[in-house]
Parts: sequence; structure tokens; C-alpha cells
Amino acid sequence: MKTRGEFGFIDFIKEHFPVPDNFEGIGDDCAILPPQQEEMLFSTDLLMEGVHFLRNESSPEDVGWKAAAVNLSDIAAMGGEAIATFLSIALPKDAQGEWAERFIEGYAQISKLYGVPLLGGDTTSSLRDIAANVGVMGKCPKGTSIKRSGAAEGDTIFVTGPLGDSAGGLQAILDGEERDQDIKVLIQRHKRPSPRMKEGKQLRESGMVNSMMDISDGIASDLEHILELSGKGATVELERIPVSDELRRAGEKYGWNVPAMAVGGGEDFELLFTAPAEIAEKLGFKVYPIGKITGGKGITWTKEGKEVEWEIKGFKHF
Amino acid sequence: MKTRGEFGFIDFIKEHFPVPDNFEGIGDDCAILPPQQEEMLFSTDLLMEGVHFLRNESSPEDVGWKAAAVNLSDIAAMGGEAIATFLSIALPKDAQGEWAERFIEGYAQISKLYGVPLLGGDTTSSLRDIAANVGVMGKCPKGTSIKRSGAAEGDTIFVTGPLGDSAGGLQAILDGEERDQDIKVLIQRHKRPSPRMKEGKQLRESGMVNSMMDISDGIASDLEHILELSGKGATVELERIPVSDELRRAGEKYGWNVPAMAVGGGEDFELLFTAPAEIAEKLGFKVYPIGKITGGKGITWTKEGKEVEWEIKGFKHF
Repeated sequence: MKTRGEFGFIDFIKEHFPVPDNFEGIGDDCAILPPQQEEMLFSTDLLMEGVHFLRNESSPEDVGWKAAAVNLSDIAAMGGEAIATFLSIALPKDAQGEWAERFIEGYAQISKLYGVPLLGGDTTSSLRDIAANVGVMGKCPKGTSIKRSGAAEGDTIFVTGPLGDSAGGLQAILDGEERDQDIKVLIQRHKRPSPRMKEGKQLRESGMVNSMMDISDGIASDLEHILELSGKGATVELERIPVSDELRRAGEKYGWNVPAMAVGGGEDFELLFTAPAEIAEKLGFKVYPIGKITGGKGITWTKEGKEVEWEIKGFKHF
Repeated sequence: MKTRGEFGFIDFIKEHFPVPDNFEGIGDDCAILPPQQEEMLFSTDLLMEGVHFLRNESSPEDVGWKAAAVNLSDIAAMGGEAIATFLSIALPKDAQGEWAERFIEGYAQISKLYGVPLLGGDTTSSLRDIAANVGVMGKCPKGTSIKRSGAAEGDTIFVTGPLGDSAGGLQAILDGEERDQDIKVLIQRHKRPSPRMKEGKQLRESGMVNSMMDISDGIASDLEHILELSGKGATVELERIPVSDELRRAGEKYGWNVPAMAVGGGEDFELLFTAPAEIAEKLGFKVYPIGKITGGKGITWTKEGKEVEWEIKGFKHF
């Protein structure tokens, strides 16, 4: 496929992302956004070929979707609303045509679904590997964004949905499992995660949530961040960690260690939060209590009321 | 050198960048910034090893400096003030220790010089090449940021300093020229460009500037952007394009095509702007008039009053 050249590619991007009134998007040295009366949130994530995705295993649309999704999820994790994203992409020669355009299509799909404009970025060549960096700007009424550091003793620990699906999907891809309906669902959850934007905002608006983050590295590792920053401990009841029917069935069929996937697997992008137990009845959506914040240190894992050894390391890049 | 690991590296970064009051930096899902009464600016640039720098030719400190500099320059180009930067960095195994830390030191030097905090980012591994993406947030009183699109017929075209030094420095590196004092100056200008933050702000505050951008791809290419977006043409007097004494002397010594470097060379990061001629006497710093905005189309190059053919393509990545 003949490429459009760098400026043609930029035009292709512009066509996919309408710029809202009062904003200036691609085309000048900077994007321009109107003054913001609320506090501002910002997060950024860099996806590298060979580390975060493989070109022969992920469609470009899926990579584009996920690049935006993981960033939007960081805004959800503070209870914020996303204002805009910014995309930098480095493309080796063999990705400058079709691959790049299909990436943009996936990125545009999720951007449209969540109503978030792309306002700027950078395009460059790359010697070998594709690199895609997304930055996301969000907002929250002043002083209301929910941090990791606010967990209070006695809080119930909740998650917004089943865990381990993404890990199951990845396992199925790696093992080349036959793609029955359950496997298809898991792979979809791995490749096209849904950031919990609406849930994050509602949780913030409840005024009851003391700490929150998104589950990107696995709950074992992510909950530790909340505990460290809050100076607290936790007990987690393993049997209460929600697991989808698809993962349970696939796990039985293929002999997977489903609890390990649910506890140690990352990239589900569900929200992990701590709040008084009553919050569960005050939300318009289901949340899953999995444990309690204590005055101690670290995580105590229990199964049917008994303490169990459970050591799972979260993901570290180096 | 033993690496500190990803979390140790993040701590190393935190030590180098104090977080201002009312801001929350590294450590949560998002950075938090106070509400912004002014309009917001945002720009981002991705530097790839092998494309933007070579590990055996640039010191890590220089790469870190330049990664921040090129972004700050985009804020200067709108007349804005930088609020904060965000850094994503992907590191192959052999860059995870000393290289990464020295990069951060260079990045911290320029950040301190311009008083801009680093508030967040992402660290990840890379299979092979280093990738570093910087995002920069800035601000400007509402409606005052200077765009590329406002050039008016009769405007004088100015630049804020000599052009071609960076191209000369690069040429000297590529040719392995002996590093006399002139060459050292040119190489320094190539490796450690100074974004014109103060000048950009003063130009905006003058209220007289109709269009502005920074010179990153070479004036021949960059001026075209202003002309296209403004629907105007320009005449440029080649002999008025300012060239430093260092570049002139080095050019004579090594037989370089100095005018081609000044017109076609990028990365000087001086500002290019158009305004009524009188502005030159109203600023606290020297600016160089190089031509006029006309009602025509494209650039007409002249030399001693005669039109000359001059075709230099600016840099495109693909």
C-alpha cells in the first residue's frame, strides 16, 4: 500500500477526529483548550511494539483502541471526566501505510464511543519498532478527585467487575486455543478493554469513596499501592474475587489456574476502590466487595475464613 | 551499573523534580493540577533513537535536555508560559541504568533553568530502541495565544536569532570536524537548544504579533506553514537571514553552503513571527527582519533585490 506521506497521514487523522467548539486541534505548535474551572488531571502511557503488543498477534485497530483505553482508564481511576487525548506515534517504514491508518481507526472508535476528542500529537519515523504514546487530559470539580492514598480503616474493598478475563484471553492467544464463544469473549476483553468512565465518575459523585485506582498490573500489585500510600493493611477474601462465567468455564476446560489469573493478571481495567460498605446499595451498578482495609500492613489473603499464603508479584517493566 | 529497577528509577526521577504547591505529581493514576483561569496549551513530541539521536553521538544528558527543549519551544511559539511537562520513556535493557539516569539529569537541568516541573509520565522497557515522549502543558490569557494563521499582508517577517547553527553543528559532528571554539559553539547549539520562552511571552504581550511559530524544520518549510494557514505569500531577502559569526567562519573554513544551512536547516528553535515593522523598536531584545508578507502565494526569495530560485525541502519524517 502506498503511504500518504507524513502530512497526508496527519490529514487522515484530522478527518477522524472532529474538534469541539472552543478548542483548537491539530495544525499549530500547540493545541488550545478553553480555561478550566475544575482541577485538571493528566496521565500518559507509552506502548512499545514487542513489549505491549506484537504486530502479528494484535490487529492495528486493537492496538489503537487499547492505547486510548489504558489512558482513559487512568482518568476514570480518579473519578474524572476526559477532556482530550494527544497521540504521538513512531512508525517504521513497513507500518507507515495500512497499519498506521487501521491503528487510527481503532483509536477513533473508542474515542467516539467515549466522546473524547484527539487534539494533537506527533508523527515520526522509527528505525524498527512502533511506539505509540497517548496523553490524556481530564477534569474533576476542585478537591474531589479520588487518590490512592485515602483508604480508611474499616473501608470495604470493592472492584467494579470480574477479574482475570484479560489474563485468560492472553493465555488463550499464547496457547493458540480453539476460539469457542468463551475464548472469544476473553480475547475481546484482553484486546478491547472498556475503561470504566461512567462508573468512575459516579463513584466520585457518591462522595463516599476514600481511595481508588484502576487495575492494570493485577489486584495483588495494585492494592499494595493503595495500602502503601494510605499507610494501611488489608484482608482479601479470595473466594469473593469475582470471576466471569466465561473465565471459569475456559479455566475448567483448559486446566488454567483461574484464581491466579484473577488475582495476578493485569489489564482488566476494572476499578479498585475502598469505601464504607453501604455504598454498594447507593450506586446504579453492581460492585463486588472483596475485603476490608485494616490498620495493619500488606495484604492478608483468606479462603473460607482461613488465612492462606498467596504470593503473586505484579508486573514491573525492569 | 546495576539498575535500580523500575520503581527505583521512578524514585530517582521524583528526587530531581520538586512538585509545586497545589500540584500532585508522580504517584497516582493521574497528575493533578489546579484549575486554570487562562486558556490551556498542549504539545507533545516523540524522540526515537536512531531517528532523532544516536546513542554513540549524543550524551544522554543532551538527549534529555533536547527532549524537554523542543516541547518548551512549542509553548514559546504560541507566546505561552509552560506549566508542567510529562515524560514517557521506553528503555532497552542496556539503557536502564546509567543512560536513563543521565538522561533525567539533562532533562532536570533545562527544567530547572526554565522553572518547569515534571509532573508525571510512564516508564517501560523496550526491545531495542530508546523512545522518549514529552508532553508539555502551558497557558496564555484567554484569546491571546499567537497562531500560525494570523499573518497579515504588509507584516514584516522576523526571526529572533541567527539560523543554521544547529545544522552547522550537526554537519561538524557528521564530518568529524576538529572541535575548535566555533565548532564547539555550533555543536552546543545543536545539542542544547534554548527555547525562546521569555521572547515568546514578550512578543505575545506586545499585542503586535499576528502569527508565530518556532523554527524546527527549517525556515523554508516552516514559513510555508504560516503562509498556507494565513492564505498569504511572502518575499524573503536571503542576505538578511541572520547567521552567527561562528557559522560564517566555520562555513568558510570547511566549505559549507552556509545559506543553505541557514534557510534549510532545522532545529534552531528560534521564533519566526510576523508583525508590523515598528515592533522591532518596542521589544527589549533584538529581532531580525527578513522579509514581508504579501498577498501572493508561496515564498519569493530575493538576493540584492533580485528574485532567485531557491528550493529547499523541509524535513518530513515519511
